[in-house]
Order: sequence, then C-alpha cells, then structure tokens
Amino acid sequence: MSSKYNIVSLIRKKRDGESLTSDEIHYLIKAYTNHEIEDYQISAFLMAGFLNGMNMEEATALTDSMLHSGIVVDLSGIPGKKVDKHSTGGVGDKLSLILAPVVASVGVPVPMISGRGLGHTGGTLDKLESIPGFYTDMNLDRYIEIISKHNLVLAGQTKEIAPADKKLYALRDVTATVEFIPYIAGSIMSKKLAEGIDALVLDVKYGSGAFMKTVEDATELAEELVEIGERFGKKTIAYLTNMNQPLGFNIGNWLEVEECVNALRGEGPDDIMKLSNLLSGTMIYLGGKAGSVEEGIKKSEETISNGKAFQKWIDIVEEQGGDSSVIKNPGQYPKARYEFELKSEEEGFIKSMNSYEIGMGSLELGAGRKSIEDIIDPTAGISLKKKVGDKILKGETILTGYTNKPATIETVTKQLYGAVKISVEQPEPELLVTHVCDSEGTRAFEL
Amino acid sequence: MSSKYNIVSLIRKKRDGESLTSDEIHYLIKAYTNHEIEDYQISAFLMAGFLNGMNMEEATALTDSMLHSGIVVDLSGIPGKKVDKHSTGGVGDKLSLILAPVVASVGVPVPMISGRGLGHTGGTLDKLESIPGFYTDMNLDRYIEIISKHNLVLAGQTKEIAPADKKLYALRDVTATVEFIPYIAGSIMSKKLAEGIDALVLDVKYGSGAFMKTVEDATELAEELVEIGERFGKKTIAYLTNMNQPLGFNIGNWLEVEECVNALRGEGPDDIMKLSNLLSGTMIYLGGKAGSVEEGIKKSEETISNGKAFQKWIDIVEEQGGDSSVIKNPGQYPKARYEFELKSEEEGFIKSMNSYEIGMGSLELGAGRKSIEDIIDPTAGISLKKKVGDKILKGETILTGYTNKPATIETVTKQLYGAVKISVEQPEPELLVTHVCDSEGTRAFEL
Repeated sequence: MSSKYNIVSLIRKKRDGESLTSDEIHYLIKAYTNHEIEDYQISAFLMAGFLNGMNMEEATALTDSMLHSGIVVDLSGIPGKKVDKHSTGGVGDKLSLILAPVVASVGVPVPMISGRGLGHTGGTLDKLESIPGFYTDMNLDRYIEIISKHNLVLAGQTKEIAPADKKLYALRDVTATVEFIPYIAGSIMSKKLAEGIDALVLDVKYGSGAFMKTVEDATELAEELVEIGERFGKKTIAYLTNMNQPLGFNIGNWLEVEECVNALRGEGPDDIMKLSNLLSGTMIYLGGKAGSVEEGIKKSEETISNGKAFQKWIDIVEEQGGDSSVIKNPGQYPKARYEFELKSEEEGFIKSMNSYEIGMGSLELGAGRKSIEDIIDPTAGISLKKKVGDKILKGETILTGYTNKPATIETVTKQLYGAVKISVEQPEPELLVTHVCDSEGTRAFEL
Repeated sequence: MSSKYNIVSLIRKKRDGESLTSDEIHYLIKAYTNHEIEDYQISAFLMAGFLNGMNMEEATALTDSMLHSGIVVDLSGIPGKKVDKHSTGGVGDKLSLILAPVVASVGVPVPMISGRGLGHTGGTLDKLESIPGFYTDMNLDRYIEIISKHNLVLAGQTKEIAPADKKLYALRDVTATVEFIPYIAGSIMSKKLAEGIDALVLDVKYGSGAFMKTVEDATELAEELVEIGERFGKKTIAYLTNMNQPLGFNIGNWLEVEECVNALRGEGPDDIMKLSNLLSGTMIYLGGKAGSVEEGIKKSEETISNGKAFQKWIDIVEEQGGDSSVIKNPGQYPKARYEFELKSEEEGFIKSMNSYEIGMGSLELGAGRKSIEDIIDPTAGISLKKKVGDKILKGETILTGYTNKPATIETVTKQLYGAVKISVEQPEPELLVTHVCDSEGTRAFEL
C-alpha cells in the first residue's frame, strides 16, 4: 500500500513520547491486518506505547480500527435495545450463563459472543460446550436467526469479528505487552462493539483471581472501558467486583453449569444470586425494561422465581443443539473417575482462599488449558464445601476435587493446601462489589 | 534450544525497568542469532531497552555476545601491538586512508575492517574500491597474510565477523531503535574487537554532519565506547571532533582518495593534516612506537615527509589488487562527465557549511547510496573551493560539483545554496577537536 505514513516514523513518534493521530493509528492497524507491516515493527510500536502511554483518543482509535477490521453485526432489525455483559475474568465466574437467559426472558435481547478460557480463568464457551451437543460456532445468518427467535444467542468469536484484535493479541502474548489498559480495553471493546449491542454492563474484577490485583488498577480499567463505550455511543456501566475468593462453590466446566442450573432455579449460592441479580438488573435497566437498576433487580428475581428464566435456558440449549435432559436432571451427567477431598488440618475459620491458586489447581485437574491446543475435560474441577468466613473443624472437608488424571492429585492437593488459610479468629467479611463506574464517574457501591 | 530462560520473562524484565544479567543478555543474542527467538520478540526487547535504558554491564554483555557471535581474529602471531581507529562517520572523512599507511609505516600493525557508506556519510570501503582493481573482500588466511607482510590490511566486514550485529542492526533500522548509545557502542565495539586489535583510537564526531549533533551526546557515546574497550582489556582513546563543516575540501569517493594522496605527500588541507597527525600520533603511541602522543605526532609527520607513508600506501594498493598508477598520477583517473560551479551571490565570509546537506548533495550526484542496493559512482562528488571563515567575492566559486547524472544538478545546486551561509562579519573559528576521553575520564583537548 502506498501511503502517506512511514511506519518507522510512526514507531519513532510513539518512542519519543508523542501521541499519534487517529488516522495514524488506523493506518497502522489496517496495514498490519493486511500484512503490509511486519510483526517486528508492530511489536516495537506496542512496547513503545506500553512504556510511553496512550491517551483516550489513541485508545479509542485503536478500538475503532480493530472493530472495523472485521464485520460489525447489524441488529437494528431486531426490536429493543440489545444489551450484553462482559467480565474481565475470574475463577468460578459462570455468571454469563445465568444473566443471558434471565435478561432475555424479560424481553431484552442479549447477543453474546464469548471466548475460551486460558490460564487460571475459565471461558464461557468451554462451559457451554460441556453440555452435550451444544454448539457455539455459527455463521452470521444463524446468529441473527437465533437471537430473533429467542432474544438470545450464545456464540463463539468467529474470525470475521475483530480479526486485528486476534492478531494483535497473539503478538502481545509473546512480547510482554499484554498488561496495558489501553490494549486490554481496546481488545475487550472492539469485540463487544462488533456484536451489535446498544448497551453494555461490565464486571471488572480485582483480587487474587483477577487480572487486576488492586481496586485501583481495576478502577482505571473500568473507567477506560466506560469512556470508550460512551465514545461509541453505547451506554456502559461497570461494577468493580471482588475476586479474592472464587465466585460460588464450583470451579470447572460442567460443575459450573450445574451451579448455574441451581441459580436459575433460585437455589444458587448467595454470592452468585446477589451478583447475578445486580448485573441482570442493570442489563434490564439499560435494555429499557425497568426504570431503574433496583426495578431491574426485582424483575430479575421474579423471572427466576416464576421459572421463565429457566425455561429460556432450556430453550436456548435446545436451539443450539444441546441435550436439555442433563440440564433438567444434572445427576445424569457423567462423573470424573477420581474424586479427592481436602480436609482441614486444624479447627478455625476459613481466612482466605487464593482464587488464582485454586484456578490453577482446577486447570491441572483437567478443567483448563495451558496452551491453546489443550483439550478440556468437562467433568474435572473443584467443588468448595466452605467459603471465606465459614467455621471449619479439624478433619472436615474444605473442598472436593474431580479429575480423570490421578497423577495430578498429589501436587494439586499440596497446591490447594497452600491456597487455603485457616485462622483462629473469624475474618471480617469482604464486600462483593465496591464501586460502580458510568459516564458520570466512579463512586462507591457496596454489596 | 531448551533453556533456563523464558524470552517473554526477559522482555518483561526489561520492560519493567530491571537490568538483565550478562547471562541473560548472552542467551538472548545467541538464541536470536540461532533463529530460536523471533524478530518480533527481539524488537520489543530492543524498544524496552531503548526506553528504559541499559547499564554498562548490559552494554558490555551485549557487545561481548555480538563479538562472539562470529569469529574473533587471533593476530597474536604477529609481533607488536595491533591498533585500529574508528570514526563515527562524517562528511569528507577520509582519514582512515591516511592513518592506516602512516601508522603501519612506523611499525605499528593496523588490522582495519571497514564498512560501506549509507546516507550522508561515505564509507571507507567505497573509497578504497574507487581505486581500479582494489579488493577488500578476502578470507581470514589472506587477511592474516597481508597484515603479516605489510603491517596493514584494509578489509571489508565479512559475514563471519559479528553476524549478530548485522542481524540486529537490520532490525533496529526498521523499528526506530537505532539512536541509542548502548546499541551504537555495542555495534561499533563488537566489530572492532573482532579484528584482532590490542588498542583503539576513536574519532567521535559531533555537529551538523555527524550522528551526534551535540558535544554532550558525543561525549556520552565516547565515554561508553572507551569504557567498553577498557572492559575488554583494550587501551582506548577517543577524541571529540568537529563535523560542523566537511573535513578537507573533497567529498565523494575518488575525490577523497585524491585528497588522501595529497595528504600522504604532505600536501593535504590544514584540517586533514592536523587531525590525521593527531590520530596517527595517538595510534603510534598506543602501538608502543612512541613514548607519548606528542612523540607519535612527530613520527607521523616524519613518515609523511620522508615518503615512507606514501610508499606504504602504494604497497598496500598493489597488494590488494589496486592500480597504483592512478595513485601516483591521479590526473589519469577518469572525470565525471558533468561539472558545475556554485558561485557566491554576495560578498563576505563563509559563515557556515552544513555538512549534512553537503553530504546529501554529494549522495544525490551519485557518490552515495539511499538504499543498500544502490551503485556508487566513484567520480561523483563535491570539491569545496572555500571553507568556513574564508573571504569570498560575489561571483567567486564556492564549490564544484561532479556528476554523471545531469538531471540532479538543478535540485542539488538549490540544496547546496541552502547549505552555505555567507555573512558580512568573519565568523569566529571553531575548534577541530574539543575533548579527549580515555580510561581516566573526559577532559578538554583543543586543536
């Protein structure tokens, strides 16, 4: 491509601490996607940006150029405001599987494109695919057909969606340029904006099992995400939520689906019910089916208690090829061949449960992947019997592990003992949600 | 290569502002040279180093690993201390062609490996190759044979010498990571240390025609070069020299050889004679053939006046296949087909001559190359008739241009008018040399 831009000059500009114009960023990303700029030039640029920073205009242009590197789904033919939710990822975070049917069942269309898990966090696609027959790979026509019929679609990211993000992410992963907010925000938002949404709820996690370890870093990311969303004309609300212990009791793909089935029947763990109702309520509010978040939460609780959300779940599972009998009777699902229990060596209270370590333990048991090619065992994982603050006796079970790889049990057991701390005193309970962030800024919001 | 190092962790370490160990740097460069690390990873690393800095240990390890990426010539079989000189590059800087025979003729072996010109500065190899038949491409045996016989060899960089530098330089050139002192110093020193030298004299240029525009930047580079040289046990002395106007009168390959012939006959321009005697004198002192630099300068002047230096020059030209008849009678050399004169439009004094612009003008006329594939015209170039401080009348010739590409004359003439400033007052003369830098530090040294 003959161009008015010189790639070396653009790298130099960022290297020297200057800001690039939106046109310059667009040129870079477009030329890179079209194989006109070499990987080694973009990686130098990414490192210069990482170290010298990128302002909101640059982050917005980056998002925009990645978004328009592929198709942007047009759902304007479907009535209503389309709303999705994105979580920055955690351990035991299965909320998408609850929110999606809940929100869709009250009439807000939810076009949800999800990713796979890598490392200690699980991925929504892997959880969905633990349901026998369930498929998430589909073309655009089928995507629109399903959401038109059910107000809901649960799809995987295709190569037509933000291909530049895919290419850049792979490069960032091998050049130590992942952990930089403008890149993280651009990656998240380019994919979400491509789905055809009108509004977005973000669950930005902090703590031991999150990518952002501190509330401060999570706030910075939340604000950047909201700002980008608003610049694209999408109403965006982010909550900062606690990932210092796993969410709910179950970690592992089918184990999490099972916990979602309970939640959709109104019998989920307390933290799951509270957080999912908050996020669903906010989605319902943004979708125009409630006048406030509080009213949205009420509708969320109602649609669970009257069984509509669960029915929506059954409907979508069947529509996307899944076997709904295991949803209706989870006890029919095959079990992992090996089970082991982690028993407390002392009496006291659970002081902390390191989510990262528990996530990694679950991965080792077969529930996750270390590299993109690894195959996931849907039955593997961990079921907590206690959570932080709970009283525990000596010899009592802290958690149960499930695996088909018995050779991992010894090491994982050791790892899990290290992840769970017991104290004599009962620890102060931590908040589940600490802040909300929207176009008006960030403020305390406690749950 | 299975390794205890993880490349992404090493990039991250430098990204986070930490220093790498020598082992880590060695691993990186070795794995890169062996194609075990991708270009895009090294370019991210290079940018992180550029922005976060590299300390002396890192720069030394970088030099060492590039040095040992290829052969290090062993000249211990040749009696005497082997001394070379390196210039950071300038316009009209032909001193290597004078120093080499001068120093060799007093008994100090000079193993000189030179490069080609790129951009506004000329390269020693291109100048040498303007002598019909002269070759600089030779194997190691021939290299040792020539220096054994003549105390002198003038060779080109082969792919056996510091291949990692060659690979890294090519990558730096396209990723905006060239202008960083530890990389520049490592590149220079790895090649020089591979020649088989015991000591080194450096001509670090500053000003309009140099890569370092200010004395401060040049000092920083000189100190790093000297420190690296000393760490490798090679006595190293650097001079900071003025490149605000071209050195001597002639710019262009054969034109410069001609000026060197004059200098070796004792008839060179004043600046050329002064600076070459200083650098030769320092090389002779480091080679142990004089008790001080002053005594070395005397020996340099003597070997020119008694004809020994010129004879050494004839000998080496003949040994390396060159036609010495044009050296003895430069008038026999073919002329460029087109000549043009730049005449002064006013009366006054030459206030300044921008070396960079004059170098670029000479390149356009055919004396240089814009890209590595360009072919050089040995007859093209510029001959100054006046230098800074000289009186000039209206209509008097400032310089003569030589080319075989008449289409370039108009543009180059305009460019050259812009490069030469005339003033009513005679400008203050500038120093030719301002500082010397050795293992004891940097101090004023005026010439």
